[in-house]
Formats: sequence, C-alpha cells, structure tokens
Amino acid sequence: MSYIKKYIDDNKDRFLDELFGLIRIPSISSLSEHKPDMVKCAEYWRDQMLKAGADKAEVMPTDGHPVVYGEKIIDPKAPTVLVYAHYDVMPVDPIEEWKSQPFEPVIRDGKIFARGADDDKGQGFMHAKAFELMVKTKTLPCNVKFMIEGEEEMGSPNLGKWLDQHKEMLKADVILVSDTSLLGKDEPSITTGLRGLAYVEVEVTGPNRDLHSGLFGGAVANPANILAKMIASLHDENNHITIPGFYDDVLEVNPTERAEMNKAPFSLDEYKKALDIKEVWGEKGFTTLERVGIRPTLDVNGIWGGYIGEGAKTVLPSKASAKISMRLVPNQDHNKIAKLFQKHFEAIAPSYVKVKVTPLHGGQGYVAPTNTPAYQAASKAMEETFGKKPIPYRSGGSIPIISTFEEKLGLKSILMGFGLESDAIHSPNENYQLEMFFKGIETIPLFYKYFSEMAR
Amino acid sequence: MSYIKKYIDDNKDRFLDELFGLIRIPSISSLSEHKPDMVKCAEYWRDQMLKAGADKAEVMPTDGHPVVYGEKIIDPKAPTVLVYAHYDVMPVDPIEEWKSQPFEPVIRDGKIFARGADDDKGQGFMHAKAFELMVKTKTLPCNVKFMIEGEEEMGSPNLGKWLDQHKEMLKADVILVSDTSLLGKDEPSITTGLRGLAYVEVEVTGPNRDLHSGLFGGAVANPANILAKMIASLHDENNHITIPGFYDDVLEVNPTERAEMNKAPFSLDEYKKALDIKEVWGEKGFTTLERVGIRPTLDVNGIWGGYIGEGAKTVLPSKASAKISMRLVPNQDHNKIAKLFQKHFEAIAPSYVKVKVTPLHGGQGYVAPTNTPAYQAASKAMEETFGKKPIPYRSGGSIPIISTFEEKLGLKSILMGFGLESDAIHSPNENYQLEMFFKGIETIPLFYKYFSEMAR
Repeated sequence: MSYIKKYIDDNKDRFLDELFGLIRIPSISSLSEHKPDMVKCAEYWRDQMLKAGADKAEVMPTDGHPVVYGEKIIDPKAPTVLVYAHYDVMPVDPIEEWKSQPFEPVIRDGKIFARGADDDKGQGFMHAKAFELMVKTKTLPCNVKFMIEGEEEMGSPNLGKWLDQHKEMLKADVILVSDTSLLGKDEPSITTGLRGLAYVEVEVTGPNRDLHSGLFGGAVANPANILAKMIASLHDENNHITIPGFYDDVLEVNPTERAEMNKAPFSLDEYKKALDIKEVWGEKGFTTLERVGIRPTLDVNGIWGGYIGEGAKTVLPSKASAKISMRLVPNQDHNKIAKLFQKHFEAIAPSYVKVKVTPLHGGQGYVAPTNTPAYQAASKAMEETFGKKPIPYRSGGSIPIISTFEEKLGLKSILMGFGLESDAIHSPNENYQLEMFFKGIETIPLFYKYFSEMAR
Repeated sequence: MSYIKKYIDDNKDRFLDELFGLIRIPSISSLSEHKPDMVKCAEYWRDQMLKAGADKAEVMPTDGHPVVYGEKIIDPKAPTVLVYAHYDVMPVDPIEEWKSQPFEPVIRDGKIFARGADDDKGQGFMHAKAFELMVKTKTLPCNVKFMIEGEEEMGSPNLGKWLDQHKEMLKADVILVSDTSLLGKDEPSITTGLRGLAYVEVEVTGPNRDLHSGLFGGAVANPANILAKMIASLHDENNHITIPGFYDDVLEVNPTERAEMNKAPFSLDEYKKALDIKEVWGEKGFTTLERVGIRPTLDVNGIWGGYIGEGAKTVLPSKASAKISMRLVPNQDHNKIAKLFQKHFEAIAPSYVKVKVTPLHGGQGYVAPTNTPAYQAASKAMEETFGKKPIPYRSGGSIPIISTFEEKLGLKSILMGFGLESDAIHSPNENYQLEMFFKGIETIPLFYKYFSEMAR
C-alpha cells in the first residue's frame, strides 16, 4: 500500500467527521438570513487549513460574503498551486422532496446525502485533506495557496474586486479546482470547457392590484397569460432562441471536433431512462452532447404569479414573474447577452402590461488547453488512480469565476472534478460517493507531484 | 324618520360589533387547517339567528363544511323568502399587501377593511340584521328561511346533495341573495345574469427530478417553458380561445340587447385609470362590458414551478403547474367545458413531457327574468332607498350554486347585492362601505314588504 493510501486509510473516519462539521453549517449564500452562517463556515475552513498545516490562514472581507485565504510556502522558487473552492451552497427547495435533512449528512448506499455533499463542500474539502496528507507525510513538493469563496452560487459578484486587490498575494502557476463531474465512475474526464451564464429576473405587471377573475377576466390583460406568451415566443419551432443577435458571437465548432465530441461514452436510451422522459428536447440540428457542450440555451429556472396555494382562488393576478437564465458558449459576452435579452423582452411586451427586467448575475464561458504541464499532470494523476486515461470534455455547466481568474490573474485553471451526474447537485437529495471523495484525496497529491516535476 | 331608519340608527354600533365578531373568525374554506374555524363560524351564525328571533336554527352537517339553517314561520299560508349567504371566505394571499390584518376589521374612510367585509360576511349579515329589525318592530310580513353555507368559495361542492336531502324543509317562493355588486354607489342595479365557471389545475412534468440547468439545459425539455408555450397557445391572435368546441354552445346575444348593454354607465378612461393600465385587453369584436357580460373567458389564476425564492438558482425544474379557470356564459355546460379543456390540453402536450389535468370545481351560468313579482319587489325597494330605479345587468362573476338552486329547488334567485367594484373582494384590502351595509339593512325589509304584497 502506498503512503497515500495508508494515510487515507488511517484517517478515514476523522476526514468524514470534519467534512460533516463543514456540511452542517447551512451556508446558503443567496438567502440573507444565512449571513451569520457564512461567517461561521468561513471560520471553519480557516481552522481546518491551520490544522492541516498552513503557515497562515485568515477570513478576509469582501463587499459580500468573506473569502478564506491560506498558504504554505515551502520555497519561493518552487512552483505554486492555487486551489479554488467555494464554501457556499444552493438553497434547498423543494424541502419536502429530501429524504433526510439537507444539513444533517447521512451515509446511505455508500453515498453522503446532504446539501453541499458534492458541490462544493465535499469536493472542496478533498483539497484540505490532500494538503494535510502531503504536509504530515512530508511529501508536499511545491507551494500551496487556498482561496475558498462564499458567493459562487450567486455568480461570485465580489470576488473579481478581491482578486484585483490581492494580485501579488495570489501569484501562482496554475489554479486547481474540483467543482465539476466525471463522465462516469469509470469514465475519468477533465473538464476543458464551461458555458457562460446570463441570469435575469422578469416581472410583468398588469392591473395595479389582484382582481376578481370573474368581474375583470376577459377585459383586462392577465400578466400570467401574457408572461406565458412572452416566454413561449423566446424559442422558435426549431428551438432556436429568437432574441435578435443572440447567436452573433457563437463560434461554430468544426465538423471534426463535433465528431470527436460525439464519440464520448453516452447512451441516449440510458439518459432518457435515468430522467424518465420519452423524448429529449433541444435545438434542431444538434445531438444531445452538442446541445449541452457547444450551444447556448435559454431556460426558465422559476416562474410564479397569482394564487399558488391549496384549492381554487379566482384571481386575476396583478403580477407574474420568472427567473430566466441563458447558458452561453465561449466568445459570447454575458453582459451583451443580458442587454440583448432586456431589449428584446421590453420590445415584445404588449402595451397593456409593464415589464421589468433585472439582471441577477452572469459569467463568461471558458476553454482550457490540453497541451500544458498542468493538464498533463492532472491527466497522469487520474490515469494512475482510475487505471484509465481521462477524456477532455466540455461541460454544459458554468463556473463564471474561472474566466475571471484568467482575466484578472492571467492563470488557466485545471478543472479536475470528482462528481458524478447522479450526485443531484442543486437538487433535493444531493449526494457524493464516499469512493469519489477518497479517490479525490488520493489523486490530488499525485497531481502536485507530477506538476512540480513538469513545471520546474 | 321611518321605523326602519330609526331602528338601524338606534342599533348601529351593536350591528357592527356583531359583524366584526363574525369577520374575526378566519373561515377560509379551501385551507384544511381552518376546519375548526368553519365550525366556529357556523355556530356564530346560528347564535345570531336565534338572537335575532328565529324559531329555530341549527348547524347541519354536509360531506364538507356545515350549513347553517334557521327559520321563522309566521303563517304556513304566507309567502316564504329563502335567504342564501355564505360564511366562508377566500384565502388572504398575498398577505404582505394588506394594510391591516385581514381578520381584524378596522374602519378607515367610512369603509370596513377585512377579508369577508363584503364577500359575503358583510353582505350576508345585513340579512340577519334586517330580519331582527322586522321581528323586533313586529313588521315581518312573511315566512323566512336562512341557509348559510361554508363552501361557496370552493364552488359549493356539497350543497347540491344537501339541497336534495332537504327539499321539503327548503320550500319557498323565492331565494334572496346579497353577494353581488352595484354598478356604482349611485347607480343601483340588480344582477340578472352570472357567468358559469370551470376551474382546473394543470401539472406538466419533464424529468423525474430537478436538474442542473447547465448540465441539462438545452437537452431536456423544461416543463416551465413548455407550460408557458401550452398556455400561450390557448388564445389566438384575436384573443379567441382555441379549445376545439369551446364556443359551440354560446348563445349569441342579439344586436338590440348588446346595444342596450353598452348604454350602462361606464367610462373606459376611468376604468383604465383605476387599474393603472394603458390599454384594455380582450376578445376582438366585443366591448369591455360585453367581454365580461356575455363572453366566455380563460385566465391563469396561478402559475408556479422551479425556484421562486430570493436570488438565482440554476435549476431546470421537474414540474411546472398552473391553475386555470374559464368563465362561461349561460348554456355552456361547465362539465363539458372542463372535459374539452382536459382533452385539448392533453392533445397539445408534446411527447417530452407528461401532463395531468385536475378539475377543481365548476358551476353553470344563470339568467334571471325581470318580469316576476320578486324582481319587481326588489326594484321597488331599491328605488325607494336609492331614489333611482335599479338597472338590470349581467355580471361577469359566478355564483355556481344559483343555477343549482333552480335545478334542485325550482326557484329563481333575486341577486340584490350592495357591494361596489372598489370593494376588492378576493384581493388584499377587501372592504365594504358602511353606507352600503346600512343601506342594505334598510332596503331588505322593503323587499319583504313589497314581495309579500305582490305574491299573496
């Protein structure tokens, strides 16, 4: 047994105990009532870094929730790995669909069930434990810096400014992130592309108050019906998005690369079966893998208006609202897209309603090269622990901050995630496989080892 | 001063105290948590009837919330007025828009503000007090029976069976109801038509769980987008309803009657100003008064799906739902329309989602003749208290039980309501003008008087 496996084996239970302590803090960044939990969670991370062997670690203020920064410098001339993770999590609605309490982690069928079990407490914490392992076994081959933020699930609105203020402190050779998924448990992969995101909230107002639907129905525009009509018009019959200019900056992917992409292990039948759907849906002319990998999309993330309680209420609502997000491909600018959306949505609003469009957050897409020492080191590390060379692939998800890192710090990121599609991140019953948690802790020291060798 | 006005004047404050006691019981029939309040409210009504002078009064069970029945028989050969009202009220959402607590009545600007202040506690209670007035002043000219139900706002699902069981007990010459509005404070009117109602709930299911909108968006049908598209398709470009067969049974109203209807006092400018809308909306080829008076309509009463909390959550929801109601005109059958809706909604559902349609409740429309002694008595009574002959008019609202009364008991109803459009029934800040409450108590004994004279 290698020293890595032995250390993990000797400390397994404690690793889980410590992770569970982190998970138990309900650090939902988007709900203001959880502000005290955000500080508590940041302090927990700081204490863990110090315990693991950091030279220093501190909770640093931003204009929003704080960032935890820690470091261990073994030699100013050695390469430096900057680890990024986030300690904030998504809200837990719909709470009634959870089989156990979201902030009380339980292990069932070899999986940890809890909000944040994977995204990104489970995956982030692997780095704390891999770091401890390297320190305690005296095998840390390079310098390490940690920045653990608390606003990733809100689109990292304040991290850019913090990066600007601490460029010197954050100097490094590569950024290492575990916040993505593998193609499968036995299909190791490294994420080389991410979609950008433009997220807006829209509100359609009809009459100045809720009305009786009998006395006014049919004579006054119903904002819920109008909102439905406006949303419906955002896709044409081929499921293309109808916002003028929306596709202008999309770079077409050449046929060779598309063919390559479609070779990834993927079964449409299993996909449909896993989701219990009869048919997939999407933009005409593209495969399912292409639709999430290389095409921009538009989805309603939430819609509400009028009476939504038990039974029947005959109301013609005053307002109806929706949260709408667009996933963008590299070269589409999220600010430009949010503006195009706003302009279009206002333009299609009929005269009998008022509309308000509020951009909530956004981020640029990202593409990573595979010919760098960092990618090669990650590939080699994973090949060693999985017994199989990982596949580079473009994910449909977004981590807006990754492109900001490149812009502000001039650094590329290695997206070496250990999640699985079945982890239900952002959903009820989020979970993380114990096997993947420990596989991550095992793989990370190997990355450090090969990266230090190659980058010197 | 007449004996009527004097009695009201002498007892004003007590009348309000007793009404406020009724209002303070939160009898929301559609929310199961209020079941105990329903019984409490029924008992309050029973006690009030006995106090006012009823020979007997009791709370009678149904398969749902109970009915309160009371009577005073002065002479088996005299005519009998059967009073109908309801003690249940609508839910109070959105609660944050109320300026005072919905179940703590307060008087501001000469109006009682509370849920049920008008609909139908304020209007219903006028009958208890008018009855008391006639008993105490020894002027009751005929027999009186009361049936006060607790499920009107749910569409009276159990009253039909109760009527069948008590046909003998309920024998009467006319039904008197105050649950409608006047055209204006100084524009007395009697409602001679009501729209029917078919109310359904629809649920669209896509994937079997909420998904991450980045990893799945664009590749899996989003039920919120699909629901929007389905709802949007229910009206065509002329705002006609697209459900096949929907208009088949609609009786066209002849041009003379339409011209007559459009002579009712109505200012489109004031209507738009009062609602703060730039334009009205509706079916092409009809005026606003026609749209609510003689045309069937379809409205979304509530819509919900996905994440509707604070901030942004990138979820592709598993389900999206809506409550949809159709107002029907006389001769349209609500059961047939609910079936047509269901068939159509299922037919237009694309293969990548599942839909479920649940009929919630319904009722037939109603038209009342104006050449009956009861109508003439109501007209004469109102003319005396308002100084102006009331206008017969067709309301856009629905009181499903009115057509059931005709079917089960063979009785027409006189819809002599004293509400105003500005009373905001079913909305936040529901209110009832004190002046109208007392005007009702003043008018009702006159109706009894003239009706007894004419019907003998």
